[in-house]
Amino acid sequence: MKCAGSIETRDVEELYINIDPIQAGGRLTPEALKAVIAYADGYSVCDNCLKPFRLDYIKKPPVAEFHEELAEWLNMDQVRMVPGARRGFQAVASSLVEKGDPVILTSLSHYTEFVALEQSGGVTREIPNDDHNHITAENAAETLERVSREFGRSPSLLFVEHADYQYGNIHEVREIAKVAHQYDVPVLLNGAYSVGVMPVDGKALGVDFVVGSGHKSMAAPAPSGLVASTEEYAGKVFRTTQAKGDITGRTFGIKEVEMMGCTLMGVTLMGMMASFPAVKERVLHWDHEVENSNKFAEAMLSIEGTEIESDSPRQHTLTRINTIGSFDEVAKTHKKRGYFLTKALKKRGITGVIAGSTRVWKYNTYGLTDAQIQYLGEAFREIAEDNGLNVG
Amino acid sequence: MKCAGSIETRDVEELYINIDPIQAGGRLTPEALKAVIAYADGYSVCDNCLKPFRLDYIKKPPVAEFHEELAEWLNMDQVRMVPGARRGFQAVASSLVEKGDPVILTSLSHYTEFVALEQSGGVTREIPNDDHNHITAENAAETLERVSREFGRSPSLLFVEHADYQYGNIHEVREIAKVAHQYDVPVLLNGAYSVGVMPVDGKALGVDFVVGSGHKSMAAPAPSGLVASTEEYAGKVFRTTQAKGDITGRTFGIKEVEMMGCTLMGVTLMGMMASFPAVKERVLHWDHEVENSNKFAEAMLSIEGTEIESDSPRQHTLTRINTIGSFDEVAKTHKKRGYFLTKALKKRGITGVIAGSTRVWKYNTYGLTDAQIQYLGEAFREIAEDNGLNVG
Repeated sequence: MKCAGSIETRDVEELYINIDPIQAGGRLTPEALKAVIAYADGYSVCDNCLKPFRLDYIKKPPVAEFHEELAEWLNMDQVRMVPGARRGFQAVASSLVEKGDPVILTSLSHYTEFVALEQSGGVTREIPNDDHNHITAENAAETLERVSREFGRSPSLLFVEHADYQYGNIHEVREIAKVAHQYDVPVLLNGAYSVGVMPVDGKALGVDFVVGSGHKSMAAPAPSGLVASTEEYAGKVFRTTQAKGDITGRTFGIKEVEMMGCTLMGVTLMGMMASFPAVKERVLHWDHEVENSNKFAEAMLSIEGTEIESDSPRQHTLTRINTIGSFDEVAKTHKKRGYFLTKALKKRGITGVIAGSTRVWKYNTYGLTDAQIQYLGEAFREIAEDNGLNVG
Repeated sequence: MKCAGSIETRDVEELYINIDPIQAGGRLTPEALKAVIAYADGYSVCDNCLKPFRLDYIKKPPVAEFHEELAEWLNMDQVRMVPGARRGFQAVASSLVEKGDPVILTSLSHYTEFVALEQSGGVTREIPNDDHNHITAENAAETLERVSREFGRSPSLLFVEHADYQYGNIHEVREIAKVAHQYDVPVLLNGAYSVGVMPVDGKALGVDFVVGSGHKSMAAPAPSGLVASTEEYAGKVFRTTQAKGDITGRTFGIKEVEMMGCTLMGVTLMGMMASFPAVKERVLHWDHEVENSNKFAEAMLSIEGTEIESDSPRQHTLTRINTIGSFDEVAKTHKKRGYFLTKALKKRGITGVIAGSTRVWKYNTYGLTDAQIQYLGEAFREIAEDNGLNVG
């Protein structure tokens, strides 16, 4: 079946158990799919846009109400929608970082954090991870001190990951924020792998900004995301335009500079909104997700030569695994080389592992049922056995 | 019917003839709606993302091919997807404009152009429109000269609208670009109201950048859009990241700074792609759309006291109308005041006029069938007659 030209209908989520590291938290809820169909047309949320003509003021559909609930849920003062977490990093960096300013991120920061800071002209310095691939308050303190001395002033901003994209490890954000504030450095929480899957309380973490991703962790279509702020910084990051036409004298109301006015005018926002009740509910069951993540990790560890490079026991569903001593040994002599694994998985209805990967790779078990977790572990164990690996 | 909580299913396009000025060109094609359903999940286009891991390199679905065809169709050298035209303005402004640089736009520029330039720190100067609400090469030349003298250097960038958002007038872009180039000023075409509804040939217009909007004029979900560039500027606007981790030594491949890596990773891109064959076809019938726009304008002009403020005859489907001498006269004494008009329209299955508007307002007839155009004109004439206005 073709959509148009050579576009094939996507059926990955219908036909497979998908353990892709970035896709798990962005699968739509049934409510979101309904909203997507109803609000698919371009400017679909603008039917009842009245003065002051800004997305977050729209009452029908209840966009304004959603903004309020979302800020409350994150325990932050204000929130805005953005086309992806990266656009949240961009908005904050562009507001707080001047060319040449020192800015701090971590050795586990996502490339979009680097790019946002590159765009603002900031000079980036990483907080090194410790031997357990954790970003610690101790290393943050050392880095803050080192960078402050190097530049003769405090950094303008510090980015820290709640759960990082490489290991899915949870970092001591609260302690890091405390240290950063001693240097008067505002802290942005990269919650791309936390907001929408696990509980996030901005005030309890003590951060100044929370950035989340709709398509990564909030069961929403792409590109979607959010940037939340404390009252202290909201006036800066959500400042309204001061532009004025020199000939016409036109001014542009309360459009916000970093948001460029409105952001998600249709299907993306409506997907986020429709999933929101289910997302609020699902973060309450994070413990069970972590339990399942550990169950699958145990199954993988029962295959001799396999190592989990992430924290063990797992505290997140995103996991980095090392199969150099197991599946990669098979690949060395298998006629299909590394592809034997992905092919064997596909045969068993499992997808999401990069084709050919048998060395160090990532998976995400988020949202799988207990039965799927069980099946998944058995499938890997079977493939291992079929290929002569020792399975405990 | 509820989607979730208090979200009602949107049925505007199913139940009404919608003449909303910004929504007409963004209604999905049936092909796009199918693609939206198939690709609604978050990172849905990333199933087969391989090295070098960038959106515009994905072969399945045929994202790479789409980029090539799109650039060719616009007669530009390179194109990238962005979350709305405004993000295209932002990318170009951020690349070419330094703080304090003079930049030129027009008295009919959209607020998002101002905001993009405000964000980059540019100092904006408007080209005044002439008495017919046109931006002319003559006024552009005068402005370029005036601003160059004021700042002691040429402006960094000039934004010009193909069809402006206020009147839907078509401006002499080719001649303006020619003048700008005499001052070595690169020209960005704001094609939010042209790309996807009427033919646009970047090279023939002589512009350096073409920006288009998916949700405004390319039958795509929001937020979506494109920024196209000539080879001359592509290296600058689509420059790849130079970021490097100072501790880890990490670099980030060929991710582009202004795109922040990937942009539309799911439903928005797929909607644009699926609509593209139909969009390519529909721009060939622009003459007929304009004919219909004129037919409806004539019906409106037959209501005594009504004036078309846009060019007459119409050359676009977006039109600014003045009904101060007709419907507003009725509103003065009608017990429903200005709301009588939108209510009477709604009763006849017509929507898209801001509730209460009877003075100066805008509509867009794009995409309506001949029968709908006929019906629309009759409906307005009937309402006029019912309320005691003279109808010719």
